[in-house]
Amino acid sequence: MFTARHRLELPSLPQCHNPALQQQLQDCIDQKTKPAGSLGQLESLALQLGLILNTTTPHIIKPQIRVFAADHGLTAEGISAFPKEVTRQMVLNFLSGGAAINVFARQHGLDLKVVDAGVDGDLEPHPQLLALKVMRGTRNSLHTAAMNAEECLQAVICGMALVREAPGNLLIVGEMGIGNTSAASLLLSKLGKLPLDQCIGRGTGLDDAGLEHKHLVLSQVLHKHRQLKNPLEILATLGGLEIAMMTGALLQAASERRILLMDGFIACSALLVAEHLQPGVKNFAVFSHNSVEPGHQQLLKLLGARPLLDLNLRLGEGTGAALAYPLLESALAFLNEMASFADAGVSGQNA
Amino acid sequence: MFTARHRLELPSLPQCHNPALQQQLQDCIDQKTKPAGSLGQLESLALQLGLILNTTTPHIIKPQIRVFAADHGLTAEGISAFPKEVTRQMVLNFLSGGAAINVFARQHGLDLKVVDAGVDGDLEPHPQLLALKVMRGTRNSLHTAAMNAEECLQAVICGMALVREAPGNLLIVGEMGIGNTSAASLLLSKLGKLPLDQCIGRGTGLDDAGLEHKHLVLSQVLHKHRQLKNPLEILATLGGLEIAMMTGALLQAASERRILLMDGFIACSALLVAEHLQPGVKNFAVFSHNSVEPGHQQLLKLLGARPLLDLNLRLGEGTGAALAYPLLESALAFLNEMASFADAGVSGQNA
Repeated sequence: MFTARHRLELPSLPQCHNPALQQQLQDCIDQKTKPAGSLGQLESLALQLGLILNTTTPHIIKPQIRVFAADHGLTAEGISAFPKEVTRQMVLNFLSGGAAINVFARQHGLDLKVVDAGVDGDLEPHPQLLALKVMRGTRNSLHTAAMNAEECLQAVICGMALVREAPGNLLIVGEMGIGNTSAASLLLSKLGKLPLDQCIGRGTGLDDAGLEHKHLVLSQVLHKHRQLKNPLEILATLGGLEIAMMTGALLQAASERRILLMDGFIACSALLVAEHLQPGVKNFAVFSHNSVEPGHQQLLKLLGARPLLDLNLRLGEGTGAALAYPLLESALAFLNEMASFADAGVSGQNA
Repeated sequence: MFTARHRLELPSLPQCHNPALQQQLQDCIDQKTKPAGSLGQLESLALQLGLILNTTTPHIIKPQIRVFAADHGLTAEGISAFPKEVTRQMVLNFLSGGAAINVFARQHGLDLKVVDAGVDGDLEPHPQLLALKVMRGTRNSLHTAAMNAEECLQAVICGMALVREAPGNLLIVGEMGIGNTSAASLLLSKLGKLPLDQCIGRGTGLDDAGLEHKHLVLSQVLHKHRQLKNPLEILATLGGLEIAMMTGALLQAASERRILLMDGFIACSALLVAEHLQPGVKNFAVFSHNSVEPGHQQLLKLLGARPLLDLNLRLGEGTGAALAYPLLESALAFLNEMASFADAGVSGQNA
């Protein structure tokens, strides 16, 4: 399906590896008035944020959330606990400020916009809505590719473009799409070369019979498309419009040295695609949480991630990332504001 | 040592168990526009906060941190990686705003006061310092009781009094006291009837030899005081002035239906004492994190706790609690602000 005319121009990736800067940051952390290492994972987080932003005095500026919404043709096979109308209904809920992600975004001053990547329904213009619909939902991947090459590229390129236009140096990509845990599971199984049963879960709340049915459907999808090799082809065939657009957004954001504050399973599946397209993108990612969805744990392992929270979340929308956000602010606050042993006249450790 | 004239008047504990309120809160949580249970531990947290504050619309008001500082006679035995002068030096650092807890308190708008419970040194008056020194550090528990009955009761009663005078409905007790992981380990081993090696760790950073020495010293202390039974006597003999004062603070705060946002090992050792004195106090406690100190993990198990964070922290001062604080705000924000399925016109789960 992808031919010479479907080449994707990837933005080049800056370097995160900088031993001199790393040493400066580590020295600064070790001089703070606390036992060495006693802020644990917050210390490695401060170090990573300094390396991403390429400075010894990193600050987060105008943090942005983009929630990407799209529908999935595979929902025709009954693989979700909720009807697909909920995708559009939840977009309206985001726009009127009543969803979980609105609440957490307000709490932390995160600028939130909703992206119509491919909702199967009409949406009125709204100041918080980016109308970038590629098509009204993907096709049913049990029968054909979810997207063709043009559609998939259009989604990826839109994702890049909307990040270029966004301010700030931290991006959360959230999503809403009934059926999208199935798309993420398919991508994980294929790209990660993992057996399907390690990649699937109950999504929004399937019972045992529903989970068994989902397994059956997804295994048939994988069998039908067993010849795929190229990551863009895999994305187009098995993924979703919101996942493709998130992939583009992540690629662009990393190329601009933005912090990628990752949410759960679906968002991380887009990062997996991005990492296959542009190895090293994951170095710009901070992993906010370990979700209940079993595939997410596999995905985190594949990406070598050490998530900040483990609160049994499985909501999506970017909520896990928004909940973890203050920990990033804390990491930078201790790095920038704490006194050193010398400043405060505090004795060091016994020799 | 404790006789009839050393009776401690405990404030009575209100009821946290309220099935009718619990059902109302659960119904409210389940009606929010999200898959049932998908906010995981944040949902049980919202429920608990509603029960503690005894309302379906809980809000945190004027959250307070009190950092209790004191010295420990047992430091004469070389059981800490830092010299004991650091206790007083760190109090000065708190008062000038340069310590980790200052940074996180500022970040989240938490009102911070430092309590001199028993620092071995003079401290100038300061608007943020509560001068409640009982004595200049405890005695060396290898040779005698750390506190006598009067000293211990004075500390507990001061802790109660300072909470009565504090505003707000959420309390974090933090601590600073070189040597206080040893006191906490002794209390845990004795009150929790656990072998010492499950209760001790490296504190601020002992090496292997230092840890072995600490084990030897603490086992001698436990042997010397093996006859103790009464929890107040155990606190006086093995504890610390800051731990005794925190115990009083927690007892008083729970009696006033304040949320006890618990920090790490030392703070939780005070809660263990409080729970022995007044069973049920722990129902008012939210456990912020699982620290590196092995005794803390035992303590959390004893208290049936499910901590919010697991970031390999081991700093104390209340820092883990301050870092977790925004999650409590998030739990209340979703409970109070999210739309319900009916409000937002979102379809429910498939039948």
